[in-house]
Amino acid sequence: MENGNQCDGAGDYYSAAAVSQATSTTTAGKVIRCKAAVAYGPGQPMVVEEILVDPPKAMEVRVKILYTSICHSDLSAWQGENEAQRVYPRIFGHEASGLIESVGEGVRELKAGDHVVPIFNGECGNCAYCKSEKTNLCQRFRVNPFKSVMTSDGTTRFSTRDGKRIYHFLNTSTFTEYTVLDSACVVAVDSQAPLKKMTLLSCGVSTGLGAAWNSANVQAESTVAVFGLGAVGLAVVEGARTRGASKIIGVDINPDKRNKGQAIGITDFINPSDLDKPVHQEIREMTGGGVHYSFECAGNLDVLREAFLSTHDGWGLTVVLGIHPSPRLLPLHPMELFDGRRIVGSVFGDFKGKTQLPAFAKQCMSGEVRLDEFITHELPFNKINEAFQLLIDGKSLRCLLHL
Amino acid sequence: MENGNQCDGAGDYYSAAAVSQATSTTTAGKVIRCKAAVAYGPGQPMVVEEILVDPPKAMEVRVKILYTSICHSDLSAWQGENEAQRVYPRIFGHEASGLIESVGEGVRELKAGDHVVPIFNGECGNCAYCKSEKTNLCQRFRVNPFKSVMTSDGTTRFSTRDGKRIYHFLNTSTFTEYTVLDSACVVAVDSQAPLKKMTLLSCGVSTGLGAAWNSANVQAESTVAVFGLGAVGLAVVEGARTRGASKIIGVDINPDKRNKGQAIGITDFINPSDLDKPVHQEIREMTGGGVHYSFECAGNLDVLREAFLSTHDGWGLTVVLGIHPSPRLLPLHPMELFDGRRIVGSVFGDFKGKTQLPAFAKQCMSGEVRLDEFITHELPFNKINEAFQLLIDGKSLRCLLHL
Repeated sequence: MENGNQCDGAGDYYSAAAVSQATSTTTAGKVIRCKAAVAYGPGQPMVVEEILVDPPKAMEVRVKILYTSICHSDLSAWQGENEAQRVYPRIFGHEASGLIESVGEGVRELKAGDHVVPIFNGECGNCAYCKSEKTNLCQRFRVNPFKSVMTSDGTTRFSTRDGKRIYHFLNTSTFTEYTVLDSACVVAVDSQAPLKKMTLLSCGVSTGLGAAWNSANVQAESTVAVFGLGAVGLAVVEGARTRGASKIIGVDINPDKRNKGQAIGITDFINPSDLDKPVHQEIREMTGGGVHYSFECAGNLDVLREAFLSTHDGWGLTVVLGIHPSPRLLPLHPMELFDGRRIVGSVFGDFKGKTQLPAFAKQCMSGEVRLDEFITHELPFNKINEAFQLLIDGKSLRCLLHL
Repeated sequence: MENGNQCDGAGDYYSAAAVSQATSTTTAGKVIRCKAAVAYGPGQPMVVEEILVDPPKAMEVRVKILYTSICHSDLSAWQGENEAQRVYPRIFGHEASGLIESVGEGVRELKAGDHVVPIFNGECGNCAYCKSEKTNLCQRFRVNPFKSVMTSDGTTRFSTRDGKRIYHFLNTSTFTEYTVLDSACVVAVDSQAPLKKMTLLSCGVSTGLGAAWNSANVQAESTVAVFGLGAVGLAVVEGARTRGASKIIGVDINPDKRNKGQAIGITDFINPSDLDKPVHQEIREMTGGGVHYSFECAGNLDVLREAFLSTHDGWGLTVVLGIHPSPRLLPLHPMELFDGRRIVGSVFGDFKGKTQLPAFAKQCMSGEVRLDEFITHELPFNKINEAFQLLIDGKSLRCLLHL
């Protein structure tokens, strides 16, 4: 951990008393007053203030958030990068862990006290999509950056003290002590699982590692290039490492990423600024024609093209994970598809959250998957704006906020 | 067949005497004088004239072409659509069938008299690509529209009577009574196979049918949309039909394609000109959200986008077969990949020609695959310019030229 732990909050394991407090029957069915970080406008510092959280309605659950961290999607949404997605006041945050405080009518597979992680890309389990092996995009609860209300009734469960509606974000809204989610967007994990690390499964680590495991299905002895060594890119590295890739090339313009990448598993590091040729040319020379798999985790179309061209013709696969807010189209010519390079998008690492995350959590608990390097900072919740700045400055991978 | 057979040439099966004549030991090792259709400039009518054809060098074979047909790639190359690929004089043509006249040094698996089809996308069998299950792009003999000479020595085997070099085309050059090819670009088929129909395996039918079988792996009861009902598109239809697709939607702006499509296997026909909404919207309405597979066989980027959007989110796959000469890039936004629609290119239907075409030929012989509808016209070789016009006018699928 680069920074000292500035938190004096609860440890990583929760006592029965703490669970009992979080899931007190005295709050079930009632409005809860608690602290939340409310965003009132694009890029404006979030205000940590008291809000009201309604009880969960049918098929919803209310969760006491214990930890939340910040992902680039929070950052770009907070900055209002996509104007059509702007809506305020709003509670951002989607990477978190916590305990179920109470459940709404009809919820069977979750109960008060369960240790949970929210998932922004939900899984109802019943729709044609959930029943298909080919996708993890649930019909009703898939990721949707335009959605700002609850699915069931189109209203919100949050309000300000003076009764104004506060909007939801990405099926989750975790910058709050209590949040309400559709039960399709909540995964219960082993009660012995360390919740701090489980926070990472909520988004970044699952997205990156799943892209290597599920989307690309990286094979042992294969070669891999990862463009962008943020938390998602480094999770791809971890996914490739656990699959036994023989060469894992990390690419980043931030030279500080070399050490972090090596700690997790890159075998080679390329800083494009140090090259006098295109990155793809360097990678082709390093790998006898190109890597088997490349991963675009930068959200930049020029990087995407380099990632595409870095793979071997005939069998190369590029997995796009980065969020691309630019209106620019794919910088690929259709005839380039005839060289046998493929490109696919990957959402939440192609994990079906409710089905697969419990087992994934156990792989993290057993040490098969290593998450030690990802939480670089910890801060108390009321320092959330500082935590945002750490991410903006490229200083943190994940800064864990303690609620 | 729409037109009467204007040919009085040989029938479809060759007598031993004919084979003997074609493979006479009197020509082996010698220069052959024969007729060829030589192109002297972009779009200029080809001149059927006597040329000289050298004997095959090491690992090459000389083939007596019996039938050749015309594909859109011949058309666009003849028109010089891509200026960088222009080179004259040149012999076009790549879809054909014939008999081996003689083989060069080192050729073991082919011999004089073999019934063969040329393949523009060769298979050496020994390179890393040929040994990979993931690609049919041979390292040395893959399709290459810029190539105009023999691979081994960079020269040509054709010359004019006054000794000027005539260039090769697409590893094949079949608009000639005799041609020389690398043995990697020649497939021997069953001597009982009807050579007229085998001509189709040389390009269009393999490209389309293979895209359905190999590239998309169309499943029984699935839904399919085919954009562009030329020979390639109709071969996709045949591929989907043989796989048991439940709905095969043909899309073409030429209303005459409806009947032809139905004769082969489309269940629905859409003429975009008749719609007051985008084609993809119509197809989504017809199929409960989109087809499982769409095939772009038009070489038009607006069509490509419609094909992409016509598939079901979550699991739709678009296979691009069309040749796109425009410098325009893919009209897709990277975020659209996150809807779970995939897009891939397919060359020669992902068939490994030498490995797979002999078995495919037998499936055609047995009637499992039906090729009756594809040869719509037949003409003697010296009417090649008329045959081009039939294709330009959209009147023919395949016009078979008899040599």
